Amino acid sequence: MADSQPLLSLDGDPVAAEALLQDVFGIVVDEVIRKGTSASEKVCEWKEPEELKQLLDLELRHEGESQEQILEHCRAVIRYSVKTCHPRFFNQLFSGLDPHALAGRIVTESLNTSQYTYEIAPVFVLMEEEVLKKLRALVGWSSGDGVFCPGGSISNMYAVNLARYQRYPDCKQRGLRALPPLALFTSKECHYSIKKGAAFLGLGTDSVRVVKADERGKMIPEDLERQISLAKAEGAVPFLVSATSGTTVLGAFDPLEAIADVCQHHGLWLHVDAAWGGSVLLSQTHRHLLAGIQRADSVAWNPHKLLSTGLQCSALLLRDTSNLLKRCHGSQASYLFQQDKFYDVALDTGDKVVQCGRRVDCLKLWLMWKAQGEQGLQRRVDQAFALARYLVEELKKREGFELVMEPEFVNVCFWFVPSLRGKKGSPDYSERLSKVAPILKERMVRKGSMMIGYQPHGTRSNFFRMVVANPALTRADVDFLLNELERLGQDL
Amino acid sequence: MADSQPLLSLDGDPVAAEALLQDVFGIVVDEVIRKGTSASEKVCEWKEPEELKQLLDLELRHEGESQEQILEHCRAVIRYSVKTCHPRFFNQLFSGLDPHALAGRIVTESLNTSQYTYEIAPVFVLMEEEVLKKLRALVGWSSGDGVFCPGGSISNMYAVNLARYQRYPDCKQRGLRALPPLALFTSKECHYSIKKGAAFLGLGTDSVRVVKADERGKMIPEDLERQISLAKAEGAVPFLVSATSGTTVLGAFDPLEAIADVCQHHGLWLHVDAAWGGSVLLSQTHRHLLAGIQRADSVAWNPHKLLSTGLQCSALLLRDTSNLLKRCHGSQASYLFQQDKFYDVALDTGDKVVQCGRRVDCLKLWLMWKAQGEQGLQRRVDQAFALARYLVEELKKREGFELVMEPEFVNVCFWFVPSLRGKKGSPDYSERLSKVAPILKERMVRKGSMMIGYQPHGTRSNFFRMVVANPALTRADVDFLLNELERLGQDL
Repeated sequence: MADSQPLLSLDGDPVAAEALLQDVFGIVVDEVIRKGTSASEKVCEWKEPEELKQLLDLELRHEGESQEQILEHCRAVIRYSVKTCHPRFFNQLFSGLDPHALAGRIVTESLNTSQYTYEIAPVFVLMEEEVLKKLRALVGWSSGDGVFCPGGSISNMYAVNLARYQRYPDCKQRGLRALPPLALFTSKECHYSIKKGAAFLGLGTDSVRVVKADERGKMIPEDLERQISLAKAEGAVPFLVSATSGTTVLGAFDPLEAIADVCQHHGLWLHVDAAWGGSVLLSQTHRHLLAGIQRADSVAWNPHKLLSTGLQCSALLLRDTSNLLKRCHGSQASYLFQQDKFYDVALDTGDKVVQCGRRVDCLKLWLMWKAQGEQGLQRRVDQAFALARYLVEELKKREGFELVMEPEFVNVCFWFVPSLRGKKGSPDYSERLSKVAPILKERMVRKGSMMIGYQPHGTRSNFFRMVVANPALTRADVDFLLNELERLGQDL
Repeated sequence: MADSQPLLSLDGDPVAAEALLQDVFGIVVDEVIRKGTSASEKVCEWKEPEELKQLLDLELRHEGESQEQILEHCRAVIRYSVKTCHPRFFNQLFSGLDPHALAGRIVTESLNTSQYTYEIAPVFVLMEEEVLKKLRALVGWSSGDGVFCPGGSISNMYAVNLARYQRYPDCKQRGLRALPPLALFTSKECHYSIKKGAAFLGLGTDSVRVVKADERGKMIPEDLERQISLAKAEGAVPFLVSATSGTTVLGAFDPLEAIADVCQHHGLWLHVDAAWGGSVLLSQTHRHLLAGIQRADSVAWNPHKLLSTGLQCSALLLRDTSNLLKRCHGSQASYLFQQDKFYDVALDTGDKVVQCGRRVDCLKLWLMWKAQGEQGLQRRVDQAFALARYLVEELKKREGFELVMEPEFVNVCFWFVPSLRGKKGSPDYSERLSKVAPILKERMVRKGSMMIGYQPHGTRSNFFRMVVANPALTRADVDFLLNELERLGQDL
């Protein structure tokens, strides 16, 4: 029975709660902030799944465990996790540890609220709008709308859903069967979420018309024209083009001005998936790569990638000023969005989204921006470009490395071809080359010295994709990458 | 130019990073863990939006700010945020602060990884599976599948998408236009995400057939039968029923056995939206409310609500053992899910979902479960029921309070009718009553003494919905609620 005691002692006991949290925070400082970011420590402590299960003692039991055991679990979780903050973690489009962003995340977690109403998230409703306004200004818009989504894939889905709703508002109520067959267009280098999204939204993957890309991975506007004509000839109604600013593998930027011309001519919604490349807008030197983005109808931009805000921080930005988001997604739940509140209910932004509870994703970016200023973030982007350039020049100096292409962004794609040098003509060259990267990957992970991704791409055999995103990266880390590949591959 | 210095000094300087994080953590301990959970402090410090904007200094500028200013921003963000951990925050279906769950969230944030591959999330891939297995066992399944989603709305969407894909696998490629018109069924008390989801998934809100509920808010199985016949007669193909275990306002549990019979008879997918009520499965005393849930095909369950794990922790559980999730959502991106990896690539679970990057949501629940044990969580659920019962009995003792109905869960819905006592027959009673709750809500928020939600419901005028979810709640807090309403409403 509930009596005057709280339901559970520790929960009602801020002193005990504080002691636990102090201990856990101490472990985080020692094991993540200090050791996790130290080049002299391992990036990962590889264990086979079966062994790892034993080490972690994952089982959830009837009885609770002691505080000491809980702390030991925290240590084990950290010990066997990959340190994405490590200066030799080059594996994904995110890495590094921005302390201000992490501070923002810790405050966010401690406050644990949902972004839907001003009533329970007054600070974050206002802050989200301020952050979105700033991002829109960098796109080139003085007005508009937007929202933070749980990742770029869902941001892209929002764009597709908004575009079809704008053209066919009936869709919301009557569904796709009431509409003609729709077609959307994106290049073969687009992120896989475009097709996933088309399936999820009921359009089907067939509705995605794949436009050719050139050798550097950029959409070919002439082929876009061709595909639009073809779709029309087949009785489909084109409604959206999704261009990419910063493709996942090659880091290519689609030519937005030319694509915007095509969209304007055909009356199509232009979405720009700038999840990866959007942060380049901060750089005066490099923002020309996104020239024309201000002509888009929607932009997806993930500061959790190049700006290291931490997962997830994914903005969907809209040029629209007609409350399209709310009209498209709103359902006016009377228990949450009461109209007889004592404040302006336009501040209850929760009906703009398809989620109900929605995490606060703005504080980590806001706090980091406050600390760095736009100039600090700009410098970070510029230096990432500079460091990628350094890597390219160093690669060229060494035998055994071969660039896939001159990069225009901070993805540096290259082969490492230890013993295959000069054997390009041999019949099994491609097959043998494709085995080098997986072997080296296994060796670096088992050793824990670094992590870098690889993939095949079209007709190209497996190559490495180095991503320069960690703000703490130095030339020494880049040199290490090359030296370490040579060490790991000396017998290959 | 990048030289041997890191891109930004603080980022490459773990000592400075640590100092900042220590300071911010200290603020979190003082302002959230201590003061935020203290009944003698305010739940919220209400400010009008324009004033709050000034107080927060939200603007993002070109120049960065000093460490001192950053810490002051953290203090202000906390000061003006609602304390959802406060023992008098009764406003939502989540509240309270579980220190172990918060510890898990801080570790999660520090490690900042994505749940998609074993390569970069070895601990969390294994842990998520263990946690999902435990939740499935409580549903009554010894096998199955599942995934954590960004909230219950998206979990519900997954269920709908999986159900239509299972029946019409063509849908993924060819879209809804290749399918007959579909119909899904849910009660009028369902969460609004069912309709939002139907619109987002391209089915349209018309595809949602609304089944009647009884006076207590439970779906009427006979009406479900009727609606299915009606839909068929109109040429639609029924494919899914979404039952609710714990409705949002009344806390009602649909009769799952009877609904499962109907689904079995018609060959329909049974989804149970147990986002709110799922945690009752932990209680031997109360789990009968969900009797029949083991017959479902899918279950949505949000431990971030009644179990206070923190936003977001939303499990979609599946009975399926045929890899339906991956077949329905998979797209085999070759840059992420390489098939030539050196470990079992079945561990790369990222292709089960429609997101790409996906936050780690399992650790907070796992760590809390380790600390409490199943028995601790069970006790928490049982005591929430007991405290809700205490509130009901106290309500009945006081004049001026009127229960909307006897609750079967921890939502206690009631009117507070200060001067309207005995005037039920008067013509403007309902209109006058509807104004009481908004006035009291404004008064409590401006005073900062507590927060409780209200809403109209069908023909019922605005009433309060008290949610007993905070594990730190005591009888004293319940008494305070009633006393405070009397104080705030003495002139009404």
